[in-house]
Amino acid sequence: MSAPRSVFFVSDRTGLTSENMGNALLEQFSELAFKRSTHPFIDSPEKAHALVAQINATAERENIHPLVFSSVVNNEIRAIVKTATAAHFSFFDAFLGQLEQELDKPARHTVRSRADDVVRYDARMEAVNFALNHDDGVSDRELQEADVILLGVSRSGKTPTCLYLALQYGIRAANYPLTPDDLDSDDLPRMVKPYRSKLFGLTIEPSRLHHIRQERRPNSTYAHLNTCKQEIADAQAIYRRHAIPFANTTHKSVEELAVEILQACKLKRRF
Amino acid sequence: MSAPRSVFFVSDRTGLTSENMGNALLEQFSELAFKRSTHPFIDSPEKAHALVAQINATAERENIHPLVFSSVVNNEIRAIVKTATAAHFSFFDAFLGQLEQELDKPARHTVRSRADDVVRYDARMEAVNFALNHDDGVSDRELQEADVILLGVSRSGKTPTCLYLALQYGIRAANYPLTPDDLDSDDLPRMVKPYRSKLFGLTIEPSRLHHIRQERRPNSTYAHLNTCKQEIADAQAIYRRHAIPFANTTHKSVEELAVEILQACKLKRRF
Repeated sequence: MSAPRSVFFVSDRTGLTSENMGNALLEQFSELAFKRSTHPFIDSPEKAHALVAQINATAERENIHPLVFSSVVNNEIRAIVKTATAAHFSFFDAFLGQLEQELDKPARHTVRSRADDVVRYDARMEAVNFALNHDDGVSDRELQEADVILLGVSRSGKTPTCLYLALQYGIRAANYPLTPDDLDSDDLPRMVKPYRSKLFGLTIEPSRLHHIRQERRPNSTYAHLNTCKQEIADAQAIYRRHAIPFANTTHKSVEELAVEILQACKLKRRF
Repeated sequence: MSAPRSVFFVSDRTGLTSENMGNALLEQFSELAFKRSTHPFIDSPEKAHALVAQINATAERENIHPLVFSSVVNNEIRAIVKTATAAHFSFFDAFLGQLEQELDKPARHTVRSRADDVVRYDARMEAVNFALNHDDGVSDRELQEADVILLGVSRSGKTPTCLYLALQYGIRAANYPLTPDDLDSDDLPRMVKPYRSKLFGLTIEPSRLHHIRQERRPNSTYAHLNTCKQEIADAQAIYRRHAIPFANTTHKSVEELAVEILQACKLKRRF
């Protein structure tokens, strides 16, 4: 196997767009190895020239063109970056001209301050606080205010999913852990019963749950594989009996889960 | 002002890349209004045809081409989406050919299952649990294990930043609230003193902090504008005296803050 190819993600902002774009493309070549580095806030000609020197040194050392994925908005800085000895994939070069033509307007070509406006910040904070307040136990008032209520047995992945929904979409997600009593009952848990349309269930592979619980309470009944199997079977029976949409967290990323929940519960992002 | 132009973000996965790409471009035309919708998991010809019908109906109703930002990997589905009456901005069409040539390999052209592998899932869970455990108070052991320790007065934005670092980068971020005693002292707080290289300070505009605290404890001394001003001045004096890098959360998004912290503390993402 050849040496990993060097990859530079370059941006005059956070670099999230260029990382995102570059990784989506590189994933199409999963048999190859890459050595990635991210270079955010390249927002002055000086920083751009320093980066070019670094890319050129890499090209010379490795004797092959590095890949440069760039989402630099500023024309002057983008032009400097493009002087580097590299294969350039420039996001704004590829699309901005066509978009200007389509919209019949010139683009600003400048970086906007990305400060959250107060509305966005408040929605996010409120949603994060909402998720955190519900991490252990939850009141009826809170369930009433929730946009969505995630059900699941202990350690099935409810908390990270709630937090991701809050941070990424400003969604107020409450967290309802299914207790042994809930799992034994044919009925929906009393507290969540009035909110059936907001419910979404999580499930997980028994062996994975066993592994996670073992880390937490080694060799307990709680962590035993049979306990995990039984609890998961009971939880899935509840979801099916009450036609609650659910997803298996074992085979999904938090990002995928969040989008699936938005779709299933017909939720819109709050910012 | 003309009616908002309809925008479709289309993907055979979560839609995060197409939203990201489209919004970065549309932001360059901030004087125009757009009506955005996201269409994730378009992963079958049937779903693609249904979407095309929806785009065409929009084009006819609004008498103008909608904008379609697509990050569909699958060739067949991408070809169907492109039959819609719209201005198409297709991410993979723009770059994949060039990348295939550069890497001298054909791309897979298929969606990879995006399941977090176990390593990634564990890193994320561990980091989220780490952030949550430290929300109130923190032990020396935990500070020792932290990748970074965020300092700041109450409600200055530490918690969402810690959680974002955990979810996005798998970074273990601890949260150290500066108490009145800490703020009165010329020295660094005893607990964090051994970890100076891990410290990053948050600050915030007094009027903004006042607003946030008012929501929480209206008309308290805690929320009073003068209290906010004094605490923030004291916190900044600590950061300056001990050469601790810091940032103002008022004018930054959580995304920007996170990247700035990674840079300042020379941290690498854990996945």
